Amino acid sequence: MMRRLINDGYDVVEEMTQGYVKAHPDYVKMHPEDDRVVLSNMMSKEPRVRIIFGGGTGHEPLFLGYVGKNGADAAVLGNVNTSPSPEPIYNSAKATDSGKGVLYLFGNYSGDIMNFEMGIEMAEDDGIQADYVAVRDDVVSSEEFEERRGVAGDIMVLKAAVAAAAKGLSLEEVKAVAEHANRNTFSMGVALSSATLPVTGKPIFHMDEGDMEIGMGIHGEPGIERKPLKTANEVIDEIMTNIFDRTDLGKGDKVHVLVNGLGALPLMDQYICFNRVSQVLEEKGLSIEKSLVGNYATSMDMIGMSVTLTRLDDDLRDYLTYPMDTPYLKVN
Amino acid sequence: MMRRLINDGYDVVEEMTQGYVKAHPDYVKMHPEDDRVVLSNMMSKEPRVRIIFGGGTGHEPLFLGYVGKNGADAAVLGNVNTSPSPEPIYNSAKATDSGKGVLYLFGNYSGDIMNFEMGIEMAEDDGIQADYVAVRDDVVSSEEFEERRGVAGDIMVLKAAVAAAAKGLSLEEVKAVAEHANRNTFSMGVALSSATLPVTGKPIFHMDEGDMEIGMGIHGEPGIERKPLKTANEVIDEIMTNIFDRTDLGKGDKVHVLVNGLGALPLMDQYICFNRVSQVLEEKGLSIEKSLVGNYATSMDMIGMSVTLTRLDDDLRDYLTYPMDTPYLKVN
Repeated sequence: MMRRLINDGYDVVEEMTQGYVKAHPDYVKMHPEDDRVVLSNMMSKEPRVRIIFGGGTGHEPLFLGYVGKNGADAAVLGNVNTSPSPEPIYNSAKATDSGKGVLYLFGNYSGDIMNFEMGIEMAEDDGIQADYVAVRDDVVSSEEFEERRGVAGDIMVLKAAVAAAAKGLSLEEVKAVAEHANRNTFSMGVALSSATLPVTGKPIFHMDEGDMEIGMGIHGEPGIERKPLKTANEVIDEIMTNIFDRTDLGKGDKVHVLVNGLGALPLMDQYICFNRVSQVLEEKGLSIEKSLVGNYATSMDMIGMSVTLTRLDDDLRDYLTYPMDTPYLKVN
Repeated sequence: MMRRLINDGYDVVEEMTQGYVKAHPDYVKMHPEDDRVVLSNMMSKEPRVRIIFGGGTGHEPLFLGYVGKNGADAAVLGNVNTSPSPEPIYNSAKATDSGKGVLYLFGNYSGDIMNFEMGIEMAEDDGIQADYVAVRDDVVSSEEFEERRGVAGDIMVLKAAVAAAAKGLSLEEVKAVAEHANRNTFSMGVALSSATLPVTGKPIFHMDEGDMEIGMGIHGEPGIERKPLKTANEVIDEIMTNIFDRTDLGKGDKVHVLVNGLGALPLMDQYICFNRVSQVLEEKGLSIEKSLVGNYATSMDMIGMSVTLTRLDDDLRDYLTYPMDTPYLKVN
């Protein structure tokens, strides 16, 4: 039996999205003809590059939770753990473009790449400039930056891109900012359980109680090793060692820290993890300039968390601290 | 085996609180001599009634997540599911009072009443005016308003009280606003699992997979009946019927809706629940003026949710929409 509160598993995306737009009518509305596209009610009046955030559902508040003022201008949603189709990807551009083009941001998964490229072709055929950045921040998923998967780092890349767009930069420039944020953003997670798929009512994979897998992806992609669960400090130490081994982060760097809950890990535990992350960073001589703790990019009811470090230079600090007002990320 | 990420179960409150103040240094600092008291860094310069929010831990982001600008001026924390001691309750008043007195807000539990009353005596002996409102919003917990337990409605009462304090009202007036908010706030929840206690590593109570208990309290206090889990819509319908049966809410009322996750229920499910809540309210002729969805008052890793309805008049609407800036509740 599933421990979820849903109706028909095939209806979760529609019912969730309807609930979302009713709960946040100041921020968003449904696209009038496409219920897989959520549009901002707070788009800038001035022509600006529009930022469209998207991907499969089941990662809430990613992606729709970040649509709003100086946030994403639209979210485009697929089924659970499945890329959106090209049609809504195109529709989101058509509904938002102000003549300066659109930049799509999504996690680097092959299905997303394929569909977003098709949607972009449709937009371009319609005379809309469109481009994308596929976020690659999960350091365990590949030695090669270009091959890495996108996880909670999506939010850091989004934050930089929306600020760049709000400042009036061109599509090419906004894309460069997003790429720059991405190249300085590094994540790694740990899972203690699988998420439960709404349609089957079953976990995606089996995990014994008391086991953990460090480096597991948000859809259950394999990590480094499955082994017995350790203390929070030991788990964080292992994550941090892996991040430092796989990146050129080091002494003297200033970082933004995101400790992200994957859905069912208590906030209490997340702050205990953050406490250790901050100790490790201090020991290694890095300084924390800003931080976020909470469920920012989840895998429904997965028990687990991830650490995302973003190395800041003056530009990135400006973009990440630029005001933004969305239901799930507000920066003053 | 426990599916939590902690170190020693006896250290969770200290480590969490340390992590919290390090993660949110703009908003809060630790009391210099009492690590069970978190103080706002954004207290008004003008003398104002100070609002102190507190109770047992394990309900994060309640209580410490609501300390900040036009928010609580301090949070005072107990062990997991245990009232804070009188000493930190007194210390929080001593550290915040600006001559206009302090109002404590906490959930209506006998241990909290006892300890807060002792803390208040200590404060009064020291010449500090102090009073409290014990929040009573869980409509299932008693037929009598005065006997009801406090659950997620704590947040609505806090929001009204902090706005009244920010507007410069007297202690007596702020208390009256909090009482007024409380008398118009009604909650009811459902649990699908127990939380896991950090010290024992075990659930507080056993619940079969596939069962639910409507009306259960956030510490596992008994609800109406334990029975097989139904669909989200059926569960919400039962909750709403119970709220309407136990209160005088009705047609024409304007309400604030809080759909609150108890810790491990996906945000997807919470929005599906909100979708149904909004349908039921529309059918019954009530209008939603504002709403919140998310993990605002949890029971660590409990799977479940609650609905909190607050009936609005012009005053309450003003208080609930008054600007506030805290890590877990921001109102523009």
